Amino acid sequence: MNLLKNPRLNGVLLDVTGVLKDGGTAIHGSVEAVRKLREAGLKIRLVTNETQVTRRALAENLLDLGYPVQELDIVSPCPALISFLQRENLRPHLLVHSNVLPEFEGIDQSNPNCVVLGDAAENFTYEHLNEAFGILINMKKPRLFSLGRGRYYSDKEGLMLDVGAFTAALEYAADVKAEIIGKPQPEFFRSTLKDMGVEPEEAVMVGDDVVSDVGGAQDCGLTGVLVRTGKYRPSDEKHPTVHPDAVVDDLAHAANLILESRK
Amino acid sequence: MNLLKNPRLNGVLLDVTGVLKDGGTAIHGSVEAVRKLREAGLKIRLVTNETQVTRRALAENLLDLGYPVQELDIVSPCPALISFLQRENLRPHLLVHSNVLPEFEGIDQSNPNCVVLGDAAENFTYEHLNEAFGILINMKKPRLFSLGRGRYYSDKEGLMLDVGAFTAALEYAADVKAEIIGKPQPEFFRSTLKDMGVEPEEAVMVGDDVVSDVGGAQDCGLTGVLVRTGKYRPSDEKHPTVHPDAVVDDLAHAANLILESRK
Repeated sequence: MNLLKNPRLNGVLLDVTGVLKDGGTAIHGSVEAVRKLREAGLKIRLVTNETQVTRRALAENLLDLGYPVQELDIVSPCPALISFLQRENLRPHLLVHSNVLPEFEGIDQSNPNCVVLGDAAENFTYEHLNEAFGILINMKKPRLFSLGRGRYYSDKEGLMLDVGAFTAALEYAADVKAEIIGKPQPEFFRSTLKDMGVEPEEAVMVGDDVVSDVGGAQDCGLTGVLVRTGKYRPSDEKHPTVHPDAVVDDLAHAANLILESRK
Repeated sequence: MNLLKNPRLNGVLLDVTGVLKDGGTAIHGSVEAVRKLREAGLKIRLVTNETQVTRRALAENLLDLGYPVQELDIVSPCPALISFLQRENLRPHLLVHSNVLPEFEGIDQSNPNCVVLGDAAENFTYEHLNEAFGILINMKKPRLFSLGRGRYYSDKEGLMLDVGAFTAALEYAADVKAEIIGKPQPEFFRSTLKDMGVEPEEAVMVGDDVVSDVGGAQDCGLTGVLVRTGKYRPSDEKHPTVHPDAVVDDLAHAANLILESRK
């Protein structure tokens, strides 16, 4: 699919960390890019695996940076996971960031029958990892849920290990395969598109993660655009299995491409 | 190979944690078992992936528990790794237990060109893992060495994550395959046998780790005996690929089997 010619393009999915902001600041040109896309009448969702903050806090942070967004524009794995836990009568042991605990209020966490990993950052201590491991290894049929599978992300302090690394650690130690909620899980993209009322071939995903953002979106039939901001590294352009529909310097360039493609 | 009939049996390799001791105490009957094996004229080595202490400290600990052993009886991955680092002009960034740092004295650690993981235990902090990751991800050709690949071990506080879990985390995040020094690496068993002057078919390995101890030894042609102490779990007897030559309750039983087999 040639991104440069798609008159039906109607929906834009944007990753947040590394596309809209890096560390605590907006990426140059991204605020204006989101405004332009919105003014052109495109439907926009911010599709993030961010699980260090609640969606409300993330929306407030983005507003502060000048982005014209609200909480409902943000799609994050937590609500999807919570519906799933409730549907399946699962009581999680949580290894998540303290900031995101409010999302789990009202969820029974007694006598846990599964483990949930988010991007817990400093909460990924040896003690907490042993605790989660101890629960998994003592289950007859261990269930491990992971809010995304990211390898690392870019923060003001540099590249930081993401939830995927710790998921791999527990998978190896407890001999279990994690169930992923979030990008690149196909269901996560599909439910977002359904909510937007947009078909896959009418949508584009812009992200800095060649696997979770670009590959995940392409697997669902969306156009996938890689930006050279955030955690982008030149080797991403030679990824063995994922070939982005376009690689651009930043969201400003991606927005221009998207608007051009509709003409 | 039937363990119960091997008149040539001449060398015994024993795992330490979970076979000789569990937490801080000797496993019932193991001290007498080692004495009996030694008195029968068998050559004995303690083959451990233990990297929380130096071999000297481990020998002292075992002596205190009543074991008739000295430092030279202990085969651990550190000396093998150190020779390798020196041979290849490698300058390690160490993520190891503080107790084991003396083993690395005299090794140039400036401007590191590889990362070494041991069983760092409480040193496996988010900060230290990010540090090791940052070094790997910024290398043209990242090299990660891991002192063993254990999933977990039994400690007085319960089952604890071993170095293998954190190796898996960094392998995933930095997209690198770790080079393992220690069990179940074949070279580790071979060099031990060479030092003992014993052929593989004349040797038996007794351990509580079905993969690293039993499988690793069997892959090199040794007899592999699994004990039901330490981190042993009933599911180990149904391991998909490793089938121990014998499974016994503890080292006391293993010693009886070994002595019987020579008749």
